[in-house]
Amino acid sequence: MTTLPTDMTAIDIVGKGGPEVLQPVTVPVPRAGAGEVLIKVEAAGVNRPDVMQRLGLYPAPKGHSEIPGLEVAGTVAEAGEGVSRFKPGDRVMALVNGGGYAQFCVADESCCLPVPDGIGMVEAAAIPEGFFTVWHNVFERGGLKSGEWFLMHGGTSGIGVVAIQLAHAFGAKVITTVGSDEKCAACVKLGATRAINYNSEDFAEVVKEVTGKRGVDVILDIVGGDYVERNIRSLAEDGRLVYIAFQKGSKVAIDLMRVMLKRLTLTGSTLRIRSNEVKAGIAQALEQKVLPLVADGRVRVVVDATYSLAEAAQAHARMDESHVGKIVLTL
Amino acid sequence: MTTLPTDMTAIDIVGKGGPEVLQPVTVPVPRAGAGEVLIKVEAAGVNRPDVMQRLGLYPAPKGHSEIPGLEVAGTVAEAGEGVSRFKPGDRVMALVNGGGYAQFCVADESCCLPVPDGIGMVEAAAIPEGFFTVWHNVFERGGLKSGEWFLMHGGTSGIGVVAIQLAHAFGAKVITTVGSDEKCAACVKLGATRAINYNSEDFAEVVKEVTGKRGVDVILDIVGGDYVERNIRSLAEDGRLVYIAFQKGSKVAIDLMRVMLKRLTLTGSTLRIRSNEVKAGIAQALEQKVLPLVADGRVRVVVDATYSLAEAAQAHARMDESHVGKIVLTL
Repeated sequence: MTTLPTDMTAIDIVGKGGPEVLQPVTVPVPRAGAGEVLIKVEAAGVNRPDVMQRLGLYPAPKGHSEIPGLEVAGTVAEAGEGVSRFKPGDRVMALVNGGGYAQFCVADESCCLPVPDGIGMVEAAAIPEGFFTVWHNVFERGGLKSGEWFLMHGGTSGIGVVAIQLAHAFGAKVITTVGSDEKCAACVKLGATRAINYNSEDFAEVVKEVTGKRGVDVILDIVGGDYVERNIRSLAEDGRLVYIAFQKGSKVAIDLMRVMLKRLTLTGSTLRIRSNEVKAGIAQALEQKVLPLVADGRVRVVVDATYSLAEAAQAHARMDESHVGKIVLTL
Repeated sequence: MTTLPTDMTAIDIVGKGGPEVLQPVTVPVPRAGAGEVLIKVEAAGVNRPDVMQRLGLYPAPKGHSEIPGLEVAGTVAEAGEGVSRFKPGDRVMALVNGGGYAQFCVADESCCLPVPDGIGMVEAAAIPEGFFTVWHNVFERGGLKSGEWFLMHGGTSGIGVVAIQLAHAFGAKVITTVGSDEKCAACVKLGATRAINYNSEDFAEVVKEVTGKRGVDVILDIVGGDYVERNIRSLAEDGRLVYIAFQKGSKVAIDLMRVMLKRLTLTGSTLRIRSNEVKAGIAQALEQKVLPLVADGRVRVVVDATYSLAEAAQAHARMDESHVGKIVLTL
């Protein structure tokens, strides 16, 4: 086994604010505890929660690394006590409790997945957060089934590109909202039956028309605000509305009468605060049901742009620009 | 087989308004169609939806009888084509699509249940609406499990007395809200761990204290209005909030952030508009899991008062007075 270096470069959040608060620092290399692996990071995904954390709006939960970064891909550098599945040198991608923007990162063994053959490290690093989130919220929590209608708000977001493809791959009909005609075209390519430019169309009207007044069965929303009431109107009987973010706010006025009369389910979740046991369960489902689709190319990992670790600030700036798919740091 | 009379007495809603619009009329005796039984009604339950229908706020769904009454007990007078389980003379109780306030009432065979030995017709008529509603919303929709905390608003309502007892019988810990100390005492007798007089205590504060800040797992609410936000605050992680009525209104301002962060589920349903297939499924579950508890006395049918069919107006007036349990018409 190669000797681990003592120190490494990581990105720290110095204060809180704009992308400029992301600064390279030298810190000790962490070690793998029981049930954990240490990953020599080759690529790390950038996600909206990292931006929120940078802004000081979403502090790292207790016991999580203060270094940002919730997903990485690389090779196992060290396997902790009791680790049985992975050994040094294995190519893995992992959902991690922070610490991803660094040369080395610790992951719970149960939250690691083998990188499918033919998938590069950049693509692999772009998988965990989006795929865990979509699988849990659209399929487990939302219960989307083949033949049903699915509405995804923000179709070109890191979550959106995964949700459209997985819903389509599992037989659902997909409608999505995005902010430009170019993004509409990108979403249709990913499998959307209909993409709506929210700057020129009212999604509730389009949903009504496209579904023949029936409405959709599952909505995954990251917008909130005035979308909530329109989502409720857009749902079919027994429809499910799942929230994973509220870019336009979470304080809303709604009429619950429709929730009762249509027997809707309104729910939501955040991934980061879940236990490793829960994450492990999602990982197992992904490995069984979803990674084969990635391996055979039916589901693509959509990467918008890559930046070096030292360019983390530029990567975050890119998050606020119009982009399609995931932004990834490479090491 | 006894010959059926041609005409019968039923209660009609003459116009809409106060209890006085309920008036006895003579109408033809209905006949059992395919898959239906005709019941010679001995008792008929009075429910809140009947009151709403009388007020003109809740018209009978298409294809349902205009005569009020959603549950009856009596003996089978006629079995329609294809009916296999019940025969004339059998003692049954049934969830019906209207028409209960009458000497004869048609029921779908699948929505009939045998009256358990030792249970009188008055008690039997008080079972279907409340037990179907509670079983579906608390156990099927809300997923209440043994060991969990359950909060029932309106513990002495027809629904409340059933919900408290069933939740308790299936191993949940029950908190309930009512409007007087006498009603609190009645609810504790039925199995509530803690009954809250909402005129002197804030239920959200009491829930916090009683559950050690944890919150409850399932809430069945008939109130709405300002209860919604307090319900959301009172739920534990992964809690479920189920609506079956909105006595204080359904248009509310809420913060969905808590729904997401605690992974709550907000849902609801109404029984009347469901298909006979759905009702049949609930009937089967009740027969298997709940009627044995009624038969052996572990779950009591709580009857507040009985009135003759001709006194239907008085029965409705009683609905607006302080009462505990079900109001039943007898024939």
